[in-house]
Amino acid sequence: MHAIGIDIGGTKIAGAVVSESGQIIAEDRVATQAGDSEAIIDAVVTMVECLAVGHTIVAAGVAAPGFIDAAQSTVYYTPNISWRNEPLRERLRRRLNLDVTIDNDANAAGWAEFRFGAGRDVSDMTMLTIGTGVGGAIVSQGRLFRGGFGAGAELGHIRLVPDGLPCGCGARGCIEQYGSGRALLRIANDIADVGGIGLALATARREHGALDGKVVGELIAAGDPGAIHALEELGHSLGQACASLSAVLDPELFVFGGGVAVAGDLLLDPVREAYRQHLPARGYHPEPEFVIAELVNNAGVVGAADLARIHSRKSG
Amino acid sequence: MHAIGIDIGGTKIAGAVVSESGQIIAEDRVATQAGDSEAIIDAVVTMVECLAVGHTIVAAGVAAPGFIDAAQSTVYYTPNISWRNEPLRERLRRRLNLDVTIDNDANAAGWAEFRFGAGRDVSDMTMLTIGTGVGGAIVSQGRLFRGGFGAGAELGHIRLVPDGLPCGCGARGCIEQYGSGRALLRIANDIADVGGIGLALATARREHGALDGKVVGELIAAGDPGAIHALEELGHSLGQACASLSAVLDPELFVFGGGVAVAGDLLLDPVREAYRQHLPARGYHPEPEFVIAELVNNAGVVGAADLARIHSRKSG
Repeated sequence: MHAIGIDIGGTKIAGAVVSESGQIIAEDRVATQAGDSEAIIDAVVTMVECLAVGHTIVAAGVAAPGFIDAAQSTVYYTPNISWRNEPLRERLRRRLNLDVTIDNDANAAGWAEFRFGAGRDVSDMTMLTIGTGVGGAIVSQGRLFRGGFGAGAELGHIRLVPDGLPCGCGARGCIEQYGSGRALLRIANDIADVGGIGLALATARREHGALDGKVVGELIAAGDPGAIHALEELGHSLGQACASLSAVLDPELFVFGGGVAVAGDLLLDPVREAYRQHLPARGYHPEPEFVIAELVNNAGVVGAADLARIHSRKSG
Repeated sequence: MHAIGIDIGGTKIAGAVVSESGQIIAEDRVATQAGDSEAIIDAVVTMVECLAVGHTIVAAGVAAPGFIDAAQSTVYYTPNISWRNEPLRERLRRRLNLDVTIDNDANAAGWAEFRFGAGRDVSDMTMLTIGTGVGGAIVSQGRLFRGGFGAGAELGHIRLVPDGLPCGCGARGCIEQYGSGRALLRIANDIADVGGIGLALATARREHGALDGKVVGELIAAGDPGAIHALEELGHSLGQACASLSAVLDPELFVFGGGVAVAGDLLLDPVREAYRQHLPARGYHPEPEFVIAELVNNAGVVGAADLARIHSRKSG
């Protein structure tokens, strides 16, 4: 039976009817009215009702950024949307008359990758999503790892550098400040400032007014040494973080998703290099593989739908 | 039905018959013939056979330091004992004609604490054992977290300081170098060197020839400012590590065990202080409690026995 997945992003709400094998049967999207939490709930209700027409739907899963409780029912906190301890699941369930679950968006995307993407052949997987920030998801023994309160797998916020760069989370030195798309732009700008291998970055910055992900991505794809150096610095930071994550989680597989991961091995090779250099007790236990995510655009909705289906099966 | 737990330590092998409620019915211990792996296997076999006399035993669990595979059957590597990819479970099972499982010693101790000690009322717990080194154990949703290859929860080896002190694991800056009993002695010696609050430490060092855990522990208990300062520095490092661990694992409870943890709140207060200061997104999600372990001496054998009982129930 089909399930519906909804992914509430900062700019758009995406939704889909998803089959048991992870196939998208129908989809929809609308702009997010950021800041208006009631309008977002209305939009989710309307989207689920419209998508459900003509399908038998077993459950709906909603993915949202921020902290969701371990019971998949209450939103502790969402950036951009003013939800604080919002009983989102109960509110949606009452209006939809359907089994509803909520999950963190990075967890939902990681779950989709585990079920239908790069992680489908392992039981223990750690995913890092390198977008504007750094998101995380952990699968252990075939189950999504949410933590005791639901706020686990916030892998962008392990500390890489003591007293390092301030982070939006209020702490300092988080890997998000050294391994994200935003960090890539910071490093690329630093390289553009100093000339030498930064010449093409500096020229692009002058032409476009500022460096953005698209411009830097194109320079990486074109083999520009400055842009590639910036990506390598990013990869080295991420590889060091993965060495610590291995000591804790020991996954069989690290999966890298998000916009920056389209660079493929140009990102993964420096990750692997730094990982090997920093891995505790190297040579005394098996090592994981590092791969790029396979589901790019729809991972959030597919994962949210699948998690809702699993949850309804358990409670049904 | 009872199970037998065996804990192979660096200096002694401890064993016990353990009831389903974690009570020790009978116990035994012999010196470890470190370096002679065959003699150790013989000693374990003899100990299990002797302990079993007069009891109905459902299974035997063996806890050992080092890396054990996820199937609880092969020892990848043990420090001090020359086991490398040793099929320990099969060898013991054949000689004992009994269901045998193997687990890492810190995992076994953590499991005992979860089942019968400080963690018995939660489902998600992270334990740090502060002995000579720093050991770790993770319980998630009531299950022991071993990692994909079995080498997870090596919490002493997450990196605290980039390019920091060299660690026995081959990496640098591991929390073990800043938060262990050995680190406490290093810090106490540094404080003794500089006079001032280090006066009593310097005097004790002169009298005893060197500072050891007992001497420093007595000065801490007596309220000596130098010894307490050393413990606080240890606690601050551990609290910072716990902040990163929360971002990954989000436990309801951190449990501190091992010899250094007898200092109680003198250790935990600086841990809590540094934790609060470094926790990502503080105030936006629930926070864990920090407590001292309750099972001190026999946690390894009790946990090993209980894990073996659970395993035999699953496979039986």
